[in-house]
Amino acid sequence: MPREAVRKTVVHLADGRELIYFDSKDDGDRTAYYDTRPLGSGPQPGESRLDPLLGEWVAVAGHRQERPYHPGEDVCPLCPSTATRHSEIPAPDYEVVVFENRFPSLAGPPAPDDELVGPLPNRLRRGGGRCEVVVFTDDHDATFASLDEPRVELILDAWTDRTATLFTLPGIQQVYVFENAGAEIGVTINHPHGQIYAFPYLAPKMAQVMRRSADYHARTGRNLHDDVLAAELAGGRVIFQNAEWAAFVPFAARWPYEAHLYPKRRVPDFIALDDAQRAAFPGAYLDVLRRFQRLFGAGGPPVPYIAAWHQAPPGAPGPAADRPAVALHAEVFTVKRAADKLKYLAGTESGMGAFMNDIPPERAAERLRAAGG
Amino acid sequence: MPREAVRKTVVHLADGRELIYFDSKDDGDRTAYYDTRPLGSGPQPGESRLDPLLGEWVAVAGHRQERPYHPGEDVCPLCPSTATRHSEIPAPDYEVVVFENRFPSLAGPPAPDDELVGPLPNRLRRGGGRCEVVVFTDDHDATFASLDEPRVELILDAWTDRTATLFTLPGIQQVYVFENAGAEIGVTINHPHGQIYAFPYLAPKMAQVMRRSADYHARTGRNLHDDVLAAELAGGRVIFQNAEWAAFVPFAARWPYEAHLYPKRRVPDFIALDDAQRAAFPGAYLDVLRRFQRLFGAGGPPVPYIAAWHQAPPGAPGPAADRPAVALHAEVFTVKRAADKLKYLAGTESGMGAFMNDIPPERAAERLRAAGG
Repeated sequence: MPREAVRKTVVHLADGRELIYFDSKDDGDRTAYYDTRPLGSGPQPGESRLDPLLGEWVAVAGHRQERPYHPGEDVCPLCPSTATRHSEIPAPDYEVVVFENRFPSLAGPPAPDDELVGPLPNRLRRGGGRCEVVVFTDDHDATFASLDEPRVELILDAWTDRTATLFTLPGIQQVYVFENAGAEIGVTINHPHGQIYAFPYLAPKMAQVMRRSADYHARTGRNLHDDVLAAELAGGRVIFQNAEWAAFVPFAARWPYEAHLYPKRRVPDFIALDDAQRAAFPGAYLDVLRRFQRLFGAGGPPVPYIAAWHQAPPGAPGPAADRPAVALHAEVFTVKRAADKLKYLAGTESGMGAFMNDIPPERAAERLRAAGG
Repeated sequence: MPREAVRKTVVHLADGRELIYFDSKDDGDRTAYYDTRPLGSGPQPGESRLDPLLGEWVAVAGHRQERPYHPGEDVCPLCPSTATRHSEIPAPDYEVVVFENRFPSLAGPPAPDDELVGPLPNRLRRGGGRCEVVVFTDDHDATFASLDEPRVELILDAWTDRTATLFTLPGIQQVYVFENAGAEIGVTINHPHGQIYAFPYLAPKMAQVMRRSADYHARTGRNLHDDVLAAELAGGRVIFQNAEWAAFVPFAARWPYEAHLYPKRRVPDFIALDDAQRAAFPGAYLDVLRRFQRLFGAGGPPVPYIAAWHQAPPGAPGPAADRPAVALHAEVFTVKRAADKLKYLAGTESGMGAFMNDIPPERAAERLRAAGG
């Protein structure tokens, strides 16, 4: 559970969206500032459609096409507000801030039941879900890897708090914490931030891992994640470990440079991390992100990457047998395959889901080990 | 089946790879030219690894990292050879050519059995599969959409011939015909060409569609593809149809602009298309590709797109009950979401497989209908 020392202040933006300050210091009134922008009404409810061939939900959100696209720094919506310029964050400074996305892919109260459209297998769902933005620092030019350990601990507190809160929303089946970093990956706002999607369905990868995990348990009586982690710790692709966490390039890495970071003792979600795991997290996560940053030259531009946090769907806390035994872990990968080359998801990946990886995972692990600080 | 009028000539490149000319004219000796380049030995066998969490195969091919990256036109490996410059195609001109990829992700004879590596669920497979390049024209500056109907018919003959041949290779579970077009999608050689992957496993999307299809049949006694096509023909997202083929934006499109092209009478693969379907194909496919080209301005640069052909795994021809009832169809989509904006696969898509589509499929269908010639 998050530390009690963290101060949490909830305010509302001009269109009714929630904004939450997470502070490690207790030195100011976060409710002193108001958002006075003429924003109109808040986010529109989204719609999700079930692909009949693949059985996977796709979110459809037409209003998002109008969202900002590479706004200049003078209009960065994540920088602190000033007397003359109002950003999304109505404060002159901040530590960590979470707020509801103004252009969410998923939003609104869930419709009471799934609806059926048309004569056959076209199933859709209206509303449900929530998209949040997590701002890591008020320094526009920072990167996650450049933050200090206390800040990363505060971010972990925010992720934990949001997971616990979003688990209680009606109809939420998965809370997904992630970060997209770099223009090469389509990031339109450079200010360091991540996102949290509370899904009204299981994302396809999560659904698949849960199916596999259940099959594996039925077949072997064992937990799939435990066995994967044990095999990786015994194998040759570990790139970092401390007393509580371990990072490795997975056996069947999809991306040229990809690392998975697990707590050594399995927990289902951020909420279940104990004090020792929490204290050891910032060093572990920063180590992994900094290795990625050094991979293509230490002095180079910020490396583009995706950090994807898997955690179990909401359910009874603890290792109850009735809760899917998904292990909290991060999957971090860059879209670069060399300093001047990108890995594209073309016909095999985007068309058939079949990944082609040109860097053997053992070689990737060697290079990530060599990129230590 | 392909037309008998097509002349097929098989030759071998300097490193032993096969190259096949498909000609509609009978006016020259395709064996008159030889590849004299010092190429060394042929493709190295690949390796595929099963992701233990997702149960999906990933191809690992370290030698591919050295393949050409945006070579200049003066060294285009797909242009005809001249007296002083030897490309991959040892002829002064050609119509349609298929050859084995020099840097394949999948190659070599399959190992007799799957091998197990390590103490637990790390399973891999050595060898198996074949990657071919299909060159659509000897005109470096053409695009598929600029070809004429006879050429498209010849390309269909080539796809059909290759499907039938690759189905007979040992251990092949899927033959995947596709085209990547445009630098935005990572295409490194502009010369118009597509690819064929003969997989020693089912690609993840195909495996998933087959599971869904079998479930649907067990539940309803009906064929999933038939019902999807019937619902789409009755719905409002059709963008083109002639007597034999229909194209629509699917109900749960993943991409801002995506169209699926089906023969109206279901067939499992290219081989099973009848004469009427074959004759009506070039007009249908060119219509769809040309709509994509006009979508962001008729006079604009070539639109980047992926065309992915789904066909049933090898098996007894015809609608035998023991063969998976997958329908031959093409899924065509662009990576653009507007003239100056790309759709990136970031944290939700690449990290969790959850697509977020900002263009409602009905609006996409309207725009693709309006982009008619």
